[in-house]
Amino acid sequence: MTRSQDFHSKVFKKDTLTLPKGQSESVVRGGRDLFSLLPKAFEGVRQIGVIGWGSQGPAQAQNLRESLEGTSIRVKIGLQQNSRSLDAARAAGFREENGTLGDMFEVIRESDLVLLLISDAAQSQLYPQIFEAMKSGATLGLSHGYLLGHLRNEGKSFPKHLNVIMVAPKGMGPSVRKLYVQGKTVNGAGINASFAVHQDVNGKATDYALGWSVALGSPYTFQTTLENEFKSDIFGERGILLGAVHGLIEGLYRRYVAQGASREEAFTRSAEAITGPISEIVSKRGILAVYEGLPASDKGVFEQAYKATYPAAREILAEIYDEVSSGNEIRSVNLAGARLARYPMGRIDGTETWKVGERVRKERAGKSVHVDPFTAGVYIAAMMAQIDELDEHGHPYSEIANESVIECTDSLNPYMHARGVAYMVDNCSTTARLGARKWAPRFDYLIDQVAYVALDEKQALNDALITEFKTHVIHAVLAEVGKMRPSVDIAVT
Amino acid sequence: MTRSQDFHSKVFKKDTLTLPKGQSESVVRGGRDLFSLLPKAFEGVRQIGVIGWGSQGPAQAQNLRESLEGTSIRVKIGLQQNSRSLDAARAAGFREENGTLGDMFEVIRESDLVLLLISDAAQSQLYPQIFEAMKSGATLGLSHGYLLGHLRNEGKSFPKHLNVIMVAPKGMGPSVRKLYVQGKTVNGAGINASFAVHQDVNGKATDYALGWSVALGSPYTFQTTLENEFKSDIFGERGILLGAVHGLIEGLYRRYVAQGASREEAFTRSAEAITGPISEIVSKRGILAVYEGLPASDKGVFEQAYKATYPAAREILAEIYDEVSSGNEIRSVNLAGARLARYPMGRIDGTETWKVGERVRKERAGKSVHVDPFTAGVYIAAMMAQIDELDEHGHPYSEIANESVIECTDSLNPYMHARGVAYMVDNCSTTARLGARKWAPRFDYLIDQVAYVALDEKQALNDALITEFKTHVIHAVLAEVGKMRPSVDIAVT
Repeated sequence: MTRSQDFHSKVFKKDTLTLPKGQSESVVRGGRDLFSLLPKAFEGVRQIGVIGWGSQGPAQAQNLRESLEGTSIRVKIGLQQNSRSLDAARAAGFREENGTLGDMFEVIRESDLVLLLISDAAQSQLYPQIFEAMKSGATLGLSHGYLLGHLRNEGKSFPKHLNVIMVAPKGMGPSVRKLYVQGKTVNGAGINASFAVHQDVNGKATDYALGWSVALGSPYTFQTTLENEFKSDIFGERGILLGAVHGLIEGLYRRYVAQGASREEAFTRSAEAITGPISEIVSKRGILAVYEGLPASDKGVFEQAYKATYPAAREILAEIYDEVSSGNEIRSVNLAGARLARYPMGRIDGTETWKVGERVRKERAGKSVHVDPFTAGVYIAAMMAQIDELDEHGHPYSEIANESVIECTDSLNPYMHARGVAYMVDNCSTTARLGARKWAPRFDYLIDQVAYVALDEKQALNDALITEFKTHVIHAVLAEVGKMRPSVDIAVT
Repeated sequence: MTRSQDFHSKVFKKDTLTLPKGQSESVVRGGRDLFSLLPKAFEGVRQIGVIGWGSQGPAQAQNLRESLEGTSIRVKIGLQQNSRSLDAARAAGFREENGTLGDMFEVIRESDLVLLLISDAAQSQLYPQIFEAMKSGATLGLSHGYLLGHLRNEGKSFPKHLNVIMVAPKGMGPSVRKLYVQGKTVNGAGINASFAVHQDVNGKATDYALGWSVALGSPYTFQTTLENEFKSDIFGERGILLGAVHGLIEGLYRRYVAQGASREEAFTRSAEAITGPISEIVSKRGILAVYEGLPASDKGVFEQAYKATYPAAREILAEIYDEVSSGNEIRSVNLAGARLARYPMGRIDGTETWKVGERVRKERAGKSVHVDPFTAGVYIAAMMAQIDELDEHGHPYSEIANESVIECTDSLNPYMHARGVAYMVDNCSTTARLGARKWAPRFDYLIDQVAYVALDEKQALNDALITEFKTHVIHAVLAEVGKMRPSVDIAVT
């Protein structure tokens, strides 16, 4: 079902990804050598207003400002007058005095390109006033298709007189900033992004989007639609990126402890193995390399864990996809937004697993972590189930690879490895944080009730799942996409 | 916000519940002595079609048939021609030969009163054909307000030419049947029910509903609306009735094991205490009696557990209420219905907790179970949080008491005590089963992350919660409603 993608740029050179099943995708490789093209890409844009200072705001605003240094394009932050983020924006060098910090609606009114990086819930609430405030013919820039999902739930659409574009970095804000800074010495370091053109009133929307993505430091930019993006993004963070990895670790940890492992050993075999060596192997050599690198005696353990986990993970992922696709998950996030003042989100890292994790991380130095074959089988099964669910719904291969593999192994898991699950979860958007809290326990329970019980009761498992895993097209996709992987890993300390 | 309730019956005598805050509710007490009034209550009804044979179908059809014995009113089952339940209906004595079993749509077309007891998901799918098939002026009987919720999501409503009534027993089908059978020797044994009249085209709808409820064997019948019923019912089963009790037990069990208890001891202190003595005390002497019956040294443990748990439980319950009230939960159930063929619901009782439970139940005979004060504090806090959430949304007191207290202590928990959690969960409707699977893990995680961490880290807790608990109006409500409690407990073996 996956479809080929193509687009036309007047400014940037396209590359072509050659993909399985005769498909291809046009992409744009990034790099600092392209910053000189930005004034041409942003033709007609004198001011970029960056609205909001949450996860993406600080990263994108600073990256844009630095990439556009020496041009006449101004990057100006817009915040509500009572915003608690004003000081943080000032500390990052955005100031009222020099016209780079101002009132949110004033900045929206003035700007030719408005990057709307406020929370999804705030977008849902404020969009009528925001649309109203924008100049006719201006460009609305989103980093997420969420607002389209919300407008659909409401039976509304974007004003016809605006360009509507999206650049969605496939990593949390701090990674987008961190790798951009690393990229000053190593050209091409960064977080991949998808882009979409939803409305193009002046014929320049594609290059505005590509220019924005290049200026953020994306190593490569692939095409999608707002619809595919909001579905895959909200789905992915509830799945393997956050919800699944959290829930799987809790369940694996408990299982190892129940089997007699020490708490430290249980955490090392579960969380440490996933966020450390398994992620590293997948990132550098692909998913299959995890399995192939196991000693022969461990391969059977991996296979049993994989065969038992895949069906349970797929069941939850099918539910998540339905919930996102139907608009339910977006309605839930909006409802949660209204409850947050009364019931603020609590911490998730005070429980035993993560307290033990804190100790394990402190004493880690110099120790090498083993790829536990059971953990690997469980984790990779959930990852493959996510890939298959997205494939069944016709998402582009680049989107599948980035949402299911690259974003976790190159951006989120390394942070989790260095700083723990709470840091990782809580540096994502509110939508992602809510989703992780909602779905992690579901993965934990279902895999415990179905997958581990199947193993313990020695139920017959489906061997075809292993054949499908070994011959899956995703391996060729990752090899092709991997050619554009920057030579530098994220520095998380 | 809770409002007084009243209605007019031409057949049945009303009683008045005198409730706190100057409120009152009219109710109808049941009993076998009232069966002679049924022909008058059902005036104009020659055939009652019972559509479906799931949880409520077998119970209601058999109770109705026996209560109407000797009258000219026929009870006829309608099932789809390929239904897997045909044999079960025949085994219960409903036969094609004598005109008490037939094709679903044929029975719908013939009947004056159509009791629609097919699954919620099936109602959502089939309602257009069902409405179409019904005789003009006939009565549609629901045992759940779900269909109203679904019609609202779709922007639709019931056909104007039909009576639309509801009788919603506050217990699962097997309990409705079991207590009716017990009621043959002990007058008044049964499951309470709420009723609602949504449309009344011939002025007889109220007595049809009350007659139906009396014929089911309800000890007392209170009034609500379809809207309040679907909200409180879907909410309640996701809360203390199924989801919360399951999730709380898993968390308590794990906590006791981690603290060094044996597995059997951990199960006894958590599940056995809740479904045994705590439920029994609440059922016979009210919620406060659980606390007051504790030795002085245990009261402090209860209070700490209560203060830590209440806020976390309330947060989840507020989320559940929002999800139900917004229509999201109904949409989720419909989406799940479409997935069930591909991903059938798995068992929930294969995990460690419930395996241990099986052993504990087997070896229980003669042992008396202690009211663990920590378990009691956690469980009662969740129960009170549910009561407060319903009260905040203006539900009638009878509904609050039945959905949050009586249904669990008198119907569900005793079954769970005798046969385990899976029996209890899986004998409820598909909507309830899906909800229990969805929300149990959420209670478990949030209480673990927030409540138990608060206790372990000795965080300051809110003492006012204990004062509010002790002076809560629910205690007076339960005392008043308790006057109508049948003298017989459910026999679960």
